[in-house]
Amino acid sequence: MKIQAPYLMFLGDVPDQLAAKTAHGIVDWRREWCVGQMRLPGCGADLSIPDMDIVEGREAGAKTLVVGVANAGGVLPDHWTAAIVEAIEAGMDVASGLHTRLGSVPEIAEAAERMGAKLHDVRHSTQRFATGKGTKRSGKRILTVGTDCSVGKKYTALALEKAMRDAGMDADFCPTGQTGIFIAGRGVAIDAVVADFISGAVEWLAPEADPNHWDVIEGQGSLFHPSFAGVSLGLLHGAQADAFVVCHEPTRTNMRGVQHKLPTIQEVIDLTIRCGSLTNPAIRPVGIAVNTHALGEAEARDYLAKVSADHGLPASDPVRFGVEEIVARLKESFAG
Amino acid sequence: MKIQAPYLMFLGDVPDQLAAKTAHGIVDWRREWCVGQMRLPGCGADLSIPDMDIVEGREAGAKTLVVGVANAGGVLPDHWTAAIVEAIEAGMDVASGLHTRLGSVPEIAEAAERMGAKLHDVRHSTQRFATGKGTKRSGKRILTVGTDCSVGKKYTALALEKAMRDAGMDADFCPTGQTGIFIAGRGVAIDAVVADFISGAVEWLAPEADPNHWDVIEGQGSLFHPSFAGVSLGLLHGAQADAFVVCHEPTRTNMRGVQHKLPTIQEVIDLTIRCGSLTNPAIRPVGIAVNTHALGEAEARDYLAKVSADHGLPASDPVRFGVEEIVARLKESFAG
Repeated sequence: MKIQAPYLMFLGDVPDQLAAKTAHGIVDWRREWCVGQMRLPGCGADLSIPDMDIVEGREAGAKTLVVGVANAGGVLPDHWTAAIVEAIEAGMDVASGLHTRLGSVPEIAEAAERMGAKLHDVRHSTQRFATGKGTKRSGKRILTVGTDCSVGKKYTALALEKAMRDAGMDADFCPTGQTGIFIAGRGVAIDAVVADFISGAVEWLAPEADPNHWDVIEGQGSLFHPSFAGVSLGLLHGAQADAFVVCHEPTRTNMRGVQHKLPTIQEVIDLTIRCGSLTNPAIRPVGIAVNTHALGEAEARDYLAKVSADHGLPASDPVRFGVEEIVARLKESFAG
Repeated sequence: MKIQAPYLMFLGDVPDQLAAKTAHGIVDWRREWCVGQMRLPGCGADLSIPDMDIVEGREAGAKTLVVGVANAGGVLPDHWTAAIVEAIEAGMDVASGLHTRLGSVPEIAEAAERMGAKLHDVRHSTQRFATGKGTKRSGKRILTVGTDCSVGKKYTALALEKAMRDAGMDADFCPTGQTGIFIAGRGVAIDAVVADFISGAVEWLAPEADPNHWDVIEGQGSLFHPSFAGVSLGLLHGAQADAFVVCHEPTRTNMRGVQHKLPTIQEVIDLTIRCGSLTNPAIRPVGIAVNTHALGEAEARDYLAKVSADHGLPASDPVRFGVEEIVARLKESFAG
């Protein structure tokens, strides 16, 4: 069930930019899909796109009202309901990244029913999956993996999709988290799937395809994260990754939310190959993506050169320096 | 929420013994909890315990009607509803291992509401979990892991609990699947938990405890099973296992339900230590449990002797020869 673009971005009255992180991600990658933003009094977030109300958004062509904000607890505040109902009555679908299901609010459910509008809760898949089969399927897949959560796996996958297409390759981004789903208009929030179906959901998300087609699969968590490694392993097995890129943030010491130290890039490469070879014995690393945000430019270049030499792989910061070298290595590695 | 024993075992009209596998497991391990069985016309299963109707079961002391059968699709057939409602009206709770939730059948929900009866759907946890923290907690834990699904991990864990208690140790079985939950009256069906919470659910199931207390945690799947390895890894991380026992079935060639070959016992030991050391660097194997059902006795003894010598660990068939040697190794390994 695809989310229909263009989007009117609803920010409610969230207090700051961080709470609108998802909305910012959508605008960063799909500016052309975002006709405007709608903000309630007191809103502290700003996407730097035109402010509109529902009527103006609809006139500008918006087909879906996107609730791309996170507030405390992921609940839907009562005073946002009126705007959502108004959007539905104006003929829009609604897509939300909140924990609260849109349809659990009676006024919203009733309006959607009456208007025939689709309600997308991107954190909750309504798709039923089979358990993973592990049987090799045609087509190629590249997965972004990480030394931790929140080290740029989504950004790297999107940058890879763009650079691969620019290089003439047939590539599609496959999102596994909510921001990615808004950006692609489809996908599976893999951490919300029932545990038995993690790898099966990824087999569904990136199905068999033309032998030269690449699915670029957004990774989640880390094989070394004590909270989420099960998700990362099921994702790796379901992806049957031919290639992977390791994502890393060099100034972080502890893994996000826990007391564990970060693994080394080499440990991630080794364990990814070891576990990934279960469903694809030919799995190989093709690059390292580093978030060098905390480093000066010269320092960043030095760091990347060292990481590249240490591992014999191209290393880059996708935001600062692009991923063209990684894509070149990918093409070279899978030529012929 | 504990399931109250004793149980009246409801078999419906399932066609054969295999469909009553869960019920057989309960009777095998908790015969004293099972006052009798209730069968509908055409039932092909038999637990070899007294046949009773609801009234007789209640008179015999049953507090819970246990629906411990699997039928096609895991649904609850309409013609079982009357017996379940009658049990509720006689004052019993109901516990079911079917996919269909008991409360989704209006007559059952209404009767339970009216009588104040508890409905336990052991496949569906109503508990809310936190994400795993990975922080070392007090108490000790032993986990059964496998070269595949269905190789005796539950049986081995139950045999360990019994032998450890017989050896004077403070040990509690912690079930992670439906049969185990009926046997213990508590637990978490770990494969039904949302993916983000696998390790967190195990941290909840086997919480901090006295330093000399052992939780004996039932494993699920295999780190080498392409459908379920994510569950197995989250379980391993959440368990923070001090010790583990590898379970194996020597005549099986392919992993259950897929086309993959079984890993070797050594591969399972190596990967379990490598991944398990993330949350418990002192993790170690203490034995190998082999299902030798398909082998003659002499052949079984030869096989176990070879496996034991190859790995430097006690090896036994828990059903045929018990797990005393494994418990002796465990005590020795953790003495002082």
